[in-house]
This record gives sequence, structure tokens and C-alpha cells, in this order.
Amino acid sequence: MTKAICLLSGGLDSSTVIYYAKDQGYEVYALSFDYGQRHKRELDAAKNIASSVGAKEHKILKVDLTQIGGSALTDQNIEVPLDREMEEMTSEIPVTYVPMRNTIFLAFAAAYAEIIGADTIFAGMNFIDYSGYPDCRPEYIKAMQKAIQLGSKAQNINIKTPIIHMDKREIIQLGSKLNVPYEKTWSCYKGGKKACGQCDSCLLRLNGFEMAGLIDPIEYEK
Amino acid sequence: MTKAICLLSGGLDSSTVIYYAKDQGYEVYALSFDYGQRHKRELDAAKNIASSVGAKEHKILKVDLTQIGGSALTDQNIEVPLDREMEEMTSEIPVTYVPMRNTIFLAFAAAYAEIIGADTIFAGMNFIDYSGYPDCRPEYIKAMQKAIQLGSKAQNINIKTPIIHMDKREIIQLGSKLNVPYEKTWSCYKGGKKACGQCDSCLLRLNGFEMAGLIDPIEYEK
Repeated sequence: MTKAICLLSGGLDSSTVIYYAKDQGYEVYALSFDYGQRHKRELDAAKNIASSVGAKEHKILKVDLTQIGGSALTDQNIEVPLDREMEEMTSEIPVTYVPMRNTIFLAFAAAYAEIIGADTIFAGMNFIDYSGYPDCRPEYIKAMQKAIQLGSKAQNINIKTPIIHMDKREIIQLGSKLNVPYEKTWSCYKGGKKACGQCDSCLLRLNGFEMAGLIDPIEYEK
Repeated sequence: MTKAICLLSGGLDSSTVIYYAKDQGYEVYALSFDYGQRHKRELDAAKNIASSVGAKEHKILKVDLTQIGGSALTDQNIEVPLDREMEEMTSEIPVTYVPMRNTIFLAFAAAYAEIIGADTIFAGMNFIDYSGYPDCRPEYIKAMQKAIQLGSKAQNINIKTPIIHMDKREIIQLGSKLNVPYEKTWSCYKGGKKACGQCDSCLLRLNGFEMAGLIDPIEYEK
């Protein structure tokens, strides 16, 4: 069986992607990061998803991005914006953008791939909902794949981003077909008992379920 | 003054490069990594060099690569090879190669550059002495620069590798002109009181000083 590293945050997108990779016949190795995010809820979600999907291994790397800061997700002094309009969310680079996060994560994923002999990295970047994030663009992924191929001993590592051109509705429809247990995922930028329902991530998720004509199985504050 | 991030390990190559960047008129921000290397001697050397060159700031990031392993530098179970012939050292990827190290370091450098508004990263990769390392090749640097430009908010970050085509003799000659205090640098893979004089890094350094007709100011065991 061909091995694949799957970047897994525990959110809706990456959880869908790891189920997709499994469905494609890969032996999946989940990779998550304890990077100093605002809460550990998403890491718990990642553990549950890795276990549900039957990952061969789930590696959680400590890579402290608060040493760099510059984002609402890694600097407690920057507020997570709430109740924004859809257009506002997607038209510019938001304060939740973490400098070079995907580049750092993909570099670690490539190192992990090299060690275990995997030739594929699956990643849940999405260009539609996160059009403001430079490191979610297809041309960035292509360039990063080339850098990884040239910079690694393995030379043959490919990055697959199956949902990069899908909107949230399509992602949820795909995940539903694959029986992704969305009740185990966590998307909210805040780490409350229930999802806040107000941050960009909650709003995009709720909108996606609504557009798909499905019920989001997790609970919301409001 | 234009700001530049300078990757600084505390070794001969990166110390020469930070002096070069300073000489070119940049305001230099030194960046080192406490990545779980076999010893802290090189970090002490980096601190001394950053101070000597008058770096505006010296950031030491903790990024634990022993979580990945796969190298003699990050896994104590893999021995550092000693007393190898020059040809043996440079003809294949050695066990001291650390998977994706330069990709990880350059990604962090780009994040740091974005935060402080620097548009240049100086790095001491060298393709002559380290021809076995895939992530020291000019084509890798070019690809990584493109990935960083596309993946960052800044879009304009350039990677400069002024010594990539120089052999150790030429690097030492350049550094001597720039008055690099080589007595403060540390190249040895081991962390003894004196440099071992037997690992690849010591042998390349000693050979370089000899070829340059100069005396290496540090002390060696043998």
C-alpha cells in the first residue's frame, strides 16, 4: 500500500481530505502541529479523526509559531474578528493568517515523508473560502512542491490538494459521501465548550452546511 | 537602511555571509535555530558573531528537529563519520544531512522577514563543499524563493546566497577581507572543548584554510 502523509488540523477541510486519501487507497499517516494555537480543541479533534479513519500513525509535532507571532491565532493580543460579512472575510488577508504556516507545515510533512518513505502529501488547502491567504493558492502549492522535490533526498514527493478548487458546500458533500464524522471535527478559532458561531471559520462552515442542505452536527453558542 | 534576515549557525560559512550582508549596507537581523543539534557550541558561536557584527537583533528559535530525526545531527544513535577522504565526503548525501532543514529554516526566515518588513534573506548554502546536500543546490534555492514569494503576504522576499558557488578557500579569503573573527566561529559537528579535526566539517574547514594559505585560529584536538 502506498503511504501518504496527511496534514490534519482537526477541522472540516483536512478531515475530509484524510478520508479522501484513505478512500483512494493510501495508507495514511496523519500529521498535526501543536504550534501554539489559541486552544487545544482542534488537536483533540485531530486525534479523534486520525483514530476514526484508521491512520497508521498520528504524529503531533511541537513547532511553536508564537515565537514568530503576527497572527490572531498565535498572538493573544490580536483579536479574532467576529460576525463579518462573507465578502469581508474573503476579500483580503485576514488577521488569522499565520505567516508562512503552510510552508513550515509542508516542509515538516516532507521531512516526515522522507523518513517513512511516503511519496505523497495530502493537504486541505482551499482557495475558494480562503482566497485571501497567499499560501492557499494553487500556484503556491505548485512552487512549494518543486522546492520540496529539489530540496529533499527523496525527490519524488507530490503534494495533493483535492479540495483546493471546491467551495465549502462541495467539500461537505464530498465528506458526507465518504462518511466523515463531522461531529468529531472542530473549526472554531475560539476554544469554548461549543463553537462560537461568529468567527470566520464558524461562519464559513455554517454557510457551507446550509448550502449543502445538511445539518452541522456540532453545537454552537449562537 | 534595508533590513535583511541572516541565517546564522555560528559556523564559518554563515558567519562570512552575515559580515558580507553588513558590508553590503544591510541592517542585519540574525536568525539561529536551537533545533536539537548535538551540542550548543555553535549557538554560543552564533551569539558571539551576531554581537561582533552588530546585528540589530538575534533571534534564536526553538524548532525541535529531533522529533523528525533521520540524521546524525539530530539522532544520537547515528554516528558522525570521521576521517573521511574528501571525495567520499562530497560524492553522496551524508548521514549529517538533516531532512528538509534548509526548507524549514528558510520558511521561518521568511516569516520573520514578513513580521519585521525585511525583503532579503541571506543564507550560507554552499554547493561546492556540500554537493551531496540537495538543499544546497542553486536550483533548489531558486524554487524555494518562488514558493516563499507566492506563499507570503510580503511577496517580495529574495534569498541571497553569496557563497553558493565558492569553495572553502574562496569563502575564507572573502571572510578575511571582511575581517570575520573566525576565532569566534564553530564548525565541528562534535561539541568538545576543542574542535575534533576529524569530522567532515572540520576536515573541509582545515583544508580550506590550508588552500587559502591562512592559519585557522581555533584549536583542534588533533
